[in-house]
Amino acid sequence: MGKKDAKPKRVKPRLLKGMQDSWPPLARARRKMLAAIADVCENRFGYLPFDTPVMEAREALLGPEPAAEQLNSIFHFTNQDDEEVGLRYEHTGSLARVVSLYQMEMTRPFRRYQVGNVFRWDKPEPGRFREFLQFDVDVIGAASAAADAEIIAVIDAVLRELGIENFTIRLSNRKLLNALGEWVGAEPEQGRAIYRVIDKLDKFDRERIRLELGPGLVDDSGDPIRGLNLTDAQIARIDEYLDLPNAGDNQATLAAARELLGDSALAVEALDEIAELLPLIGAMGVDEAAVKSDLWLARGLGYYTGPVFEVVLNDLPSFGSIFGGGRYDGLVERFLGKGQGIPSTGASVGVDRLLAAQTELGRLAEPYSNTQVLVTVMDKARLADYVALTRELREAGITAETYLGGGNLGKQLKYADKLGIPLAVIAGEDEFAKGELSVKDLELGRKIAGEAESRDEWQELKQQFTIPRADLVLQLQKRLAGG
Amino acid sequence: MGKKDAKPKRVKPRLLKGMQDSWPPLARARRKMLAAIADVCENRFGYLPFDTPVMEAREALLGPEPAAEQLNSIFHFTNQDDEEVGLRYEHTGSLARVVSLYQMEMTRPFRRYQVGNVFRWDKPEPGRFREFLQFDVDVIGAASAAADAEIIAVIDAVLRELGIENFTIRLSNRKLLNALGEWVGAEPEQGRAIYRVIDKLDKFDRERIRLELGPGLVDDSGDPIRGLNLTDAQIARIDEYLDLPNAGDNQATLAAARELLGDSALAVEALDEIAELLPLIGAMGVDEAAVKSDLWLARGLGYYTGPVFEVVLNDLPSFGSIFGGGRYDGLVERFLGKGQGIPSTGASVGVDRLLAAQTELGRLAEPYSNTQVLVTVMDKARLADYVALTRELREAGITAETYLGGGNLGKQLKYADKLGIPLAVIAGEDEFAKGELSVKDLELGRKIAGEAESRDEWQELKQQFTIPRADLVLQLQKRLAGG
Repeated sequence: MGKKDAKPKRVKPRLLKGMQDSWPPLARARRKMLAAIADVCENRFGYLPFDTPVMEAREALLGPEPAAEQLNSIFHFTNQDDEEVGLRYEHTGSLARVVSLYQMEMTRPFRRYQVGNVFRWDKPEPGRFREFLQFDVDVIGAASAAADAEIIAVIDAVLRELGIENFTIRLSNRKLLNALGEWVGAEPEQGRAIYRVIDKLDKFDRERIRLELGPGLVDDSGDPIRGLNLTDAQIARIDEYLDLPNAGDNQATLAAARELLGDSALAVEALDEIAELLPLIGAMGVDEAAVKSDLWLARGLGYYTGPVFEVVLNDLPSFGSIFGGGRYDGLVERFLGKGQGIPSTGASVGVDRLLAAQTELGRLAEPYSNTQVLVTVMDKARLADYVALTRELREAGITAETYLGGGNLGKQLKYADKLGIPLAVIAGEDEFAKGELSVKDLELGRKIAGEAESRDEWQELKQQFTIPRADLVLQLQKRLAGG
Repeated sequence: MGKKDAKPKRVKPRLLKGMQDSWPPLARARRKMLAAIADVCENRFGYLPFDTPVMEAREALLGPEPAAEQLNSIFHFTNQDDEEVGLRYEHTGSLARVVSLYQMEMTRPFRRYQVGNVFRWDKPEPGRFREFLQFDVDVIGAASAAADAEIIAVIDAVLRELGIENFTIRLSNRKLLNALGEWVGAEPEQGRAIYRVIDKLDKFDRERIRLELGPGLVDDSGDPIRGLNLTDAQIARIDEYLDLPNAGDNQATLAAARELLGDSALAVEALDEIAELLPLIGAMGVDEAAVKSDLWLARGLGYYTGPVFEVVLNDLPSFGSIFGGGRYDGLVERFLGKGQGIPSTGASVGVDRLLAAQTELGRLAEPYSNTQVLVTVMDKARLADYVALTRELREAGITAETYLGGGNLGKQLKYADKLGIPLAVIAGEDEFAKGELSVKDLELGRKIAGEAESRDEWQELKQQFTIPRADLVLQLQKRLAGG
């Protein structure tokens, strides 16, 4: 930088760890996903778009009881005004900030959705990035169960709009956590620890769960796993709880749970809320068979206070939940003060996770380029003529481009092939003199090369043919339509 | 955080200085602008979407000769891996990084566009934010003037797609800078300083310009302004240059400039490039009357090497340029080494500046909410019925919502009024018993209240009316269509 004659330092180009470059098919799929989300939210359900900045005061980003992993996950720094700022970790913190800041001007219920990039200092894993797009949908200022049902209906509609049909919506209620702690005769707060153990049911057997609830164990690798030190009587009660019919027939689950937990007022309240929610979800148009009461559903985040739900793909069970949410009535309290909470419910999904799921299911087949016709350049002096040809195609609604690079026809056709462009227009002195154009069907060429045995099929279609200049649009439209 | 009993600290909700919250009309307008940009780029011109992360290695973000203002403008910090990272200041640095990193896999010409938020530590001003959306369109690996023309055609098409028709595209060539320095008999590098003075022509008169080119002056506020100390003969030559016909008839400008500057090979090269570009821009379909050769156009960024252009709105001349770009053949050199540049051309625009321009022109009239029908809740026990009514409307393509908050009918209708929802459906015990629904036309109510004198017009339309339950969709569709 300093001296004029100093040799400029060469910089090694690199992508930061955990970051993602999106090549055209992925970038295009993501853009279409965003358009589908916006369409469902705004045009079907009338949700309001509301955007907030990526950067917030760091304290505003932290939840009411920030967990250590949250504190470590936020990218933060001191800005030039000496403020501690951070990049948003999720949208919920910004939403709480907005609702608190504009409480006088903002009409409630405030039904909003937001899509934007969020940042997490996570350990990068395949499909897990440190910057990714997150979609949130929330209703602020609505105690009604219809609000929870609507959030689930929006999720359902978004997934169907994206062509995802085979999924299960697991539904529970956060109040079951404390109820369980109380019901087994431990502290209500123990409920969370108990659920953390129950959550391992998909990895471990019941015996292992019992040990973790009780004295602990030494696992296969020799590591000691601390237990919760519950009594045998308490563990026996949890055993009964885990013996309940679950995530099958909703009425059977609820009836059995009600019978078992009937002496816990909190448990009954939780079960009543689930029972109230189910028919509303159905009335919203969600397939009732896809909704399963799952009493063991924990959901990580600390701030939920009522219904909780998540979506799993039946075709990709190992993928885990792809959508999750619930009611969080206390969220704005950190801004407005204890007891000043606003009843709220919402859900959130990582758009890149949804894209990854779509990729896994083989449903992402976006082309590299949308271009349908490449107009090649045979004679540089006639550049304006090639450009005019391209313009004519564009104005007729065909995605077309003039070849802008250097090189001979072979190089130009190779460019079209690499981009998957189906047709090329070729015009040299001869063609211009005769008022004609040559057209090369590259798509057909690729088919013939790829499947030599079915060559006959395409025998009657010529790979290269001549058309009158005046018929350009009509002939190419016909060819693109498969004629 | 620490102790359980410690009273949680209340956080004051605030928006960081220079940041923007986007309320629904703005957020919706922005989303539509992005959709229009994507449609023009991908579907008309076949440009490829390519997205990069917000965060980059800081050194990758800096231009080849980073100006002090650029160094200060980048938000940067040391991350948990002890890397110096920064938030992108513009898209061009990331583009150069991508082109350098993937040069083996990426087919060129690489015609790409990108829309994403960029971050600048600028002094916040009305309409100027520290985080804003930027749209870039570039062709990498194309020396052809058709590439420059195409970039201008994309800009033209995007503006027209957005309903902006009355604009001027100013066109010049960066080579004129060095040519002018050489032609007046100074160092070629002096050309940049001379242009920096010429750039003030829209604020100051020619006499003041002469003083700044020569000995300098003391301005009205008493501040000394340093001059370039050019000789009288040199200033006289610049005077001749400034007397050229400019930004009017392109042929007249070019012919006069060619006559005056004919002994400078570099100036002739620049003028030839402008003359070559003009008919190509016309062949692309851009209105030739909107393109003006402007020999005095400077364009701030240091990296341009050939054609430069910018767009000004004729209805908002004081707004300055809303789109700018040019050819920058040396950009990737900082990654690939001196002399390893790739011929490139592109343009960039602040989407929020375009939105601000649209607002100024009174062209942003997005509604707060898209909801067309609010289904009110008169009887909480019938919530599922209201939800089912809403669902029926939605399935017929009407944007509808059930009222999710608490409160009586008055409060619910006030909610609809504040959101600008045109129709409300009201159904109590009576209506359910009779198989009827009440409909309130709130839009009509607002019209009547707002324009008392034209009441007669709406006399025949009833503000509230009853319809059979079975006719719900049909009747509301009719009313929404203005019947």
